[in-house]
Amino acid sequence: MSEQAVLEQPQVERVSAHRSHGGTQGVYRHSSVATGTDMTFSVFVPDFTPGAKLPVVYYLSGLTCTHANVTEKGGFRRACAELGLILVAPDTSPRGEGVPDDPAAAYDFGLGAGFYVDATEAPYAANYRMWTYVTEELPALIAANFPVDMMRQSIMGHSMGGHGALTIGLSFPQRFKAISAFSPIVAPSLVPWGHKAFSGYFGTDASAWRRHDAVALIEDGARVPGLLVDQGAADEFLETQLRPDLLAAACDSAGIDLELNLRAGYDHSYYFISTFMAAHLRWHAERLNRPSAGQA
Amino acid sequence: MSEQAVLEQPQVERVSAHRSHGGTQGVYRHSSVATGTDMTFSVFVPDFTPGAKLPVVYYLSGLTCTHANVTEKGGFRRACAELGLILVAPDTSPRGEGVPDDPAAAYDFGLGAGFYVDATEAPYAANYRMWTYVTEELPALIAANFPVDMMRQSIMGHSMGGHGALTIGLSFPQRFKAISAFSPIVAPSLVPWGHKAFSGYFGTDASAWRRHDAVALIEDGARVPGLLVDQGAADEFLETQLRPDLLAAACDSAGIDLELNLRAGYDHSYYFISTFMAAHLRWHAERLNRPSAGQA
Repeated sequence: MSEQAVLEQPQVERVSAHRSHGGTQGVYRHSSVATGTDMTFSVFVPDFTPGAKLPVVYYLSGLTCTHANVTEKGGFRRACAELGLILVAPDTSPRGEGVPDDPAAAYDFGLGAGFYVDATEAPYAANYRMWTYVTEELPALIAANFPVDMMRQSIMGHSMGGHGALTIGLSFPQRFKAISAFSPIVAPSLVPWGHKAFSGYFGTDASAWRRHDAVALIEDGARVPGLLVDQGAADEFLETQLRPDLLAAACDSAGIDLELNLRAGYDHSYYFISTFMAAHLRWHAERLNRPSAGQA
Repeated sequence: MSEQAVLEQPQVERVSAHRSHGGTQGVYRHSSVATGTDMTFSVFVPDFTPGAKLPVVYYLSGLTCTHANVTEKGGFRRACAELGLILVAPDTSPRGEGVPDDPAAAYDFGLGAGFYVDATEAPYAANYRMWTYVTEELPALIAANFPVDMMRQSIMGHSMGGHGALTIGLSFPQRFKAISAFSPIVAPSLVPWGHKAFSGYFGTDASAWRRHDAVALIEDGARVPGLLVDQGAADEFLETQLRPDLLAAACDSAGIDLELNLRAGYDHSYYFISTFMAAHLRWHAERLNRPSAGQA
């Protein structure tokens, strides 16, 4: 999809806006070319001096979530305001009449479970194009409508959204100055959530599976300077679905500087995420605010 | 209701517990003697050294809310953990089968709208006993089940819960070391929300109305050293329902040190509350940690 195609779309519609923590928390809706549906996302913009361009952090959410979960429970606004960061939170799948769901309406496939891929299998291929949405259409919309410095983008996410942040970040190492995750799915090819999703969205195309599996991407040569991951040690999905040990091994072999914090007592919820959100945003800000090599 | 009656009740049941911000966010349920229903409340307990007793802040919520709104969106945990404060958030009314609601199921009376009073009018008098619940039964339960220092209690609330915090605080000036509110209803007798509620819960008993009206309480002689109120200037209910000017005039006449912060651009939502929550909790902690006159 060309940038021109996006710019020909009507402007985003503002659904709501609330002043909070010295900035504005907005929710927006637009007609998506990528998914063929309306899509909703939230953006927090700290107060800024006229003409300023702020760095932007994309936050990708987990299974069952919309933009609303992190927007209400994420606890990111104070830190974003202090650090001067815009935070963008998209939805986790296309939604609406005619969008196919899991045949059994399960929580881990279909609606609320787009896995940040472009599906190739029927009936999902028409709408489930979250890779294109998050990597192309959404950034173009953000660039066109918000005071962002597109040379300073970073990405983070939780669980399925941690998978999204890692795979997108590893695929665009020049674009994203920082990549972090809370309790990410690091090797979807090897765990039940990912196996079900990739079977449904890709069928048996093994190359598509590897391109959307963070551990496989690293094994296949993807490189970034570092990654930050926080993981609750009391997370019920730790051993069956998340397997941070596999990411640690891959990073170790590849020489990627992984900071993996295992947090005793913490679970998979926003009670966990909100606890360490400010630390992640500080880590992002440090990297977003470094002069890039070309500017030295 | 005697303390004995409370202690004979079964212990509170823990509904959920999540580690967050170096403490534990719990939700609890119990069979209430005061309301004749099950009641649910949340408690955040920061990590503490064995044997320690922590000060406790009660947070009373507004119309339509349960414990869940502030628990999920209030943004109080980081500050409570840093300051060593327990925060207790009760529900806003009795609920359950047989509990009478507003005849038209309106949001501003009946379920979710108990107004922190003991109703005297049928059919509400049997269950709508939120004054007794919040001032007697809940503190006894908290004292029996959590590591609290009952000599160091304070109270805060939002909107209808700001009304509750002000009226309860003004009625028990020795018990509560600090009283604050976000966008409180300060003169319920004079505004539509309060007029409807008091008509329904009390009928025409004017003395009951005055005992549950913060401005009238001050006019009738209630005194506290100070009050902290934050109010959004873009709050849609400011002029019709909240009227902080009436509280300011009453405090001025009575010599009560009211810190009233009018916040430009902020509305009535948790986006506003969470912005100033940490400042309120610091204000509470300063007063909760002062040596009391008797201990000097």
